[in-house]
Amino acid sequence: MTKLDDVLSNIDANLDAALERLFAILRIKSISTDPAYKAECMANAEWHVADLKGIGFDAAVRPTPGHPMVVAHDRSVSGPSALFYGHYDVQPVDPLALWDRDPFDPSIQTMPDGAKIITGRGAADDKGQLMSFIEACRAWKAVSGKLPIPISILLEGEEESGGANLPGFLDAHAAELRADIGLICDTNMWDPETPAIQTMLRGLCGEEVIVHAADRDLHSGFYGSAAANPNRILARILSDLHDESGRVTLRGFYDGVPELPKTLREQWDSLNFSARSFLGAIGLSVPAGEKGRDALEMVWSRPTCEINGMGGGYQGAGFKTVIPATASAKVSFRLVFDQDPHAIRKAFREHVHARVPADCRVEFLEHGAGQAIRFPIEAPAFGKARDALTAEWGKPAVFIGGGGSIPVTHQLKQSLGMDVVLAGFGLEDDRIHSPNEKYNLKSFHKGIRSWARILEALSR
Amino acid sequence: MTKLDDVLSNIDANLDAALERLFAILRIKSISTDPAYKAECMANAEWHVADLKGIGFDAAVRPTPGHPMVVAHDRSVSGPSALFYGHYDVQPVDPLALWDRDPFDPSIQTMPDGAKIITGRGAADDKGQLMSFIEACRAWKAVSGKLPIPISILLEGEEESGGANLPGFLDAHAAELRADIGLICDTNMWDPETPAIQTMLRGLCGEEVIVHAADRDLHSGFYGSAAANPNRILARILSDLHDESGRVTLRGFYDGVPELPKTLREQWDSLNFSARSFLGAIGLSVPAGEKGRDALEMVWSRPTCEINGMGGGYQGAGFKTVIPATASAKVSFRLVFDQDPHAIRKAFREHVHARVPADCRVEFLEHGAGQAIRFPIEAPAFGKARDALTAEWGKPAVFIGGGGSIPVTHQLKQSLGMDVVLAGFGLEDDRIHSPNEKYNLKSFHKGIRSWARILEALSR
Repeated sequence: MTKLDDVLSNIDANLDAALERLFAILRIKSISTDPAYKAECMANAEWHVADLKGIGFDAAVRPTPGHPMVVAHDRSVSGPSALFYGHYDVQPVDPLALWDRDPFDPSIQTMPDGAKIITGRGAADDKGQLMSFIEACRAWKAVSGKLPIPISILLEGEEESGGANLPGFLDAHAAELRADIGLICDTNMWDPETPAIQTMLRGLCGEEVIVHAADRDLHSGFYGSAAANPNRILARILSDLHDESGRVTLRGFYDGVPELPKTLREQWDSLNFSARSFLGAIGLSVPAGEKGRDALEMVWSRPTCEINGMGGGYQGAGFKTVIPATASAKVSFRLVFDQDPHAIRKAFREHVHARVPADCRVEFLEHGAGQAIRFPIEAPAFGKARDALTAEWGKPAVFIGGGGSIPVTHQLKQSLGMDVVLAGFGLEDDRIHSPNEKYNLKSFHKGIRSWARILEALSR
Repeated sequence: MTKLDDVLSNIDANLDAALERLFAILRIKSISTDPAYKAECMANAEWHVADLKGIGFDAAVRPTPGHPMVVAHDRSVSGPSALFYGHYDVQPVDPLALWDRDPFDPSIQTMPDGAKIITGRGAADDKGQLMSFIEACRAWKAVSGKLPIPISILLEGEEESGGANLPGFLDAHAAELRADIGLICDTNMWDPETPAIQTMLRGLCGEEVIVHAADRDLHSGFYGSAAANPNRILARILSDLHDESGRVTLRGFYDGVPELPKTLREQWDSLNFSARSFLGAIGLSVPAGEKGRDALEMVWSRPTCEINGMGGGYQGAGFKTVIPATASAKVSFRLVFDQDPHAIRKAFREHVHARVPADCRVEFLEHGAGQAIRFPIEAPAFGKARDALTAEWGKPAVFIGGGGSIPVTHQLKQSLGMDVVLAGFGLEDDRIHSPNEKYNLKSFHKGIRSWARILEALSR
């Protein structure tokens, strides 16, 4: 039996203990976007430090102006080094009423098809995924007393709330954190049987806009039509973001957005992606984006603009004939290829200003900016990781694009000059950011085994 | 000294006791639109019954499928009869943080200019106004042992929440409630020195629209652009309600909307209405309605469309990259002349359906419908009421239009064949429906005296 086989057996034998550890952090309400959960974020960071010290890492909570980072090192072996990144913070849980059970009371449930799932906020995004890596490290240390390669771990607490402090932290600690390759576990499989490495990621530009009109709420019968209504102004701003063909109207929005290279286009076509089943799974059927583009292109390689939240005036039960003093919206842009998030923020603000009457004013809040990214799939680490995944899952791993933004990947490249292997075991139906988030037990178990294999492969 | 003089002296001498009674009902949280306040609405109705019985009225709480009515009669004298209508329910108080003090803890405050005001939700709309009528009745009974004319009183508990049960109640009790003239105290003075009788009222059509897209909240990174976003659909629906010139785009919306008759136009021009000071008082300067119309026309004689509330997705602190499953808006139309609220509701729904993609669905909730109304200012009751107001305030009372809708006036006309004298003592800065609602002490005091005079005038 090879040492890897021993490690895999150790993982199988200790799965219950690994689950107990995961449940412990799933119970921590580390919602980073809401200041009310500041202490829970700190508690989550401290949990990881204690856990990583227990495995033999030199670990510490590292303060930032926001929620802290966790940094841990175990470089006691030689060989190519890796920096693993994960995030311990989670999304808010509203609307709470739509959860089948308390989002912070994790459980194992059995689905009608017999599959077991881990339920709770953060089960997939990212607590379950990041623990799959840490459990692989634990198993290697338990079996062989050491890791296959030198490893550093960086856990962020603000990934779900803009990650404002990450770039500064990476810059300030570049020498400490730099490694030969980055590893991140925050992405999905291609399908429940097919492992995947994501090599293209869209960037993000998040904006909040607040329109201010009268200096108080008004009675719409007395002031209606004569007084500016911020709801109406905002509706126009938001409606005008797209034209009839579904294209975003901001000036210069498509600068730096080429058509897909032919080779990638062909590889994606071979995936036999079904828009019907992709949308059917969420109760929809008509791709809503740019006319003439297929749905896979829409979510992997085309830039988008989404209104993530909007509100103004009376939203309670019944009716209130009010003209509110303010209305606001949160808008995000997913960026591809060479789109510049700062240029797009500027174009958005110009778009807004052009639609705000002279006697009203507008306020903006910045919510993150990250450029899109592509990794060189011909580099050795990518091939090794793909082969390790293929060995674990018994099906060839694929290089894919992806819709979500993981700004850290861009920052690792820019600040530390590192490429990143994005291997994750999430599934499309994990409901991350939604009520009833879950992570398949199989994803967790085989995810740990996958990382054990990848670490071994990278050491060769 | 005439009997009227005695009555006016009695009112002056008993103002403090009248204020104590008003404060007692201002402390009752009779928010009709929110089911949580059902018991408080009932308590408010019961308070009025006890109070009216104390004056000698035959009074009772009268159940409806919603909040109850209060009906009271004192027809022990002969002469032309009157039905007074008021409403004991109030608007919600959110946003609570913008109130300078508890909205249900009324107080007397002195303004920098020395004017005394009564503070609290309902101070003006309509508790202070309706009590000005009841206190006038009380004074007449105290001084002369009887009312000048036969009086019935009807107090509604659902005026601020659609008034769904009023038409049925009026129809069912038409014989009991019918009188020679209707009296309502729920309107404003022309300015703090000039009393007014409102003889034109806009109608109202209220609609709530809920757009449903995916069967759950989605991550905008994974589904953005491919999946329909109800916020985007709703923004388009709302934005398209007005064209570039500020006109409402619904099919047939301006049917039955003539230009203003020349005589009324001239009378209104003589009021020297200042859009600058009207809008300046609320921090605005640019009339936002139809291009080519002046602001007085916008709020008195032109139909309008306002978005009173809208919301969808994440509206909390920070950011959440979500595509919500639903988004909704509350929209109201103020109607003039012969516009048909039902035709406009239909046109609105067509407008919405035309903008909802095939894989999404839409839901509507009806929130009231009332046609616009004009009263014959040449009828004797209007002249008598105008003269009584002129005598009290020392300045000629004016016949005016008005922006708010008081659906009951239309229903009194339609169900009971009655004209209504709308004489009220509210002021533009009363902040009704807004935080820090108030009613001037002078409005309350001289309002009581005004009603005492009007009742006497109507008896002649």
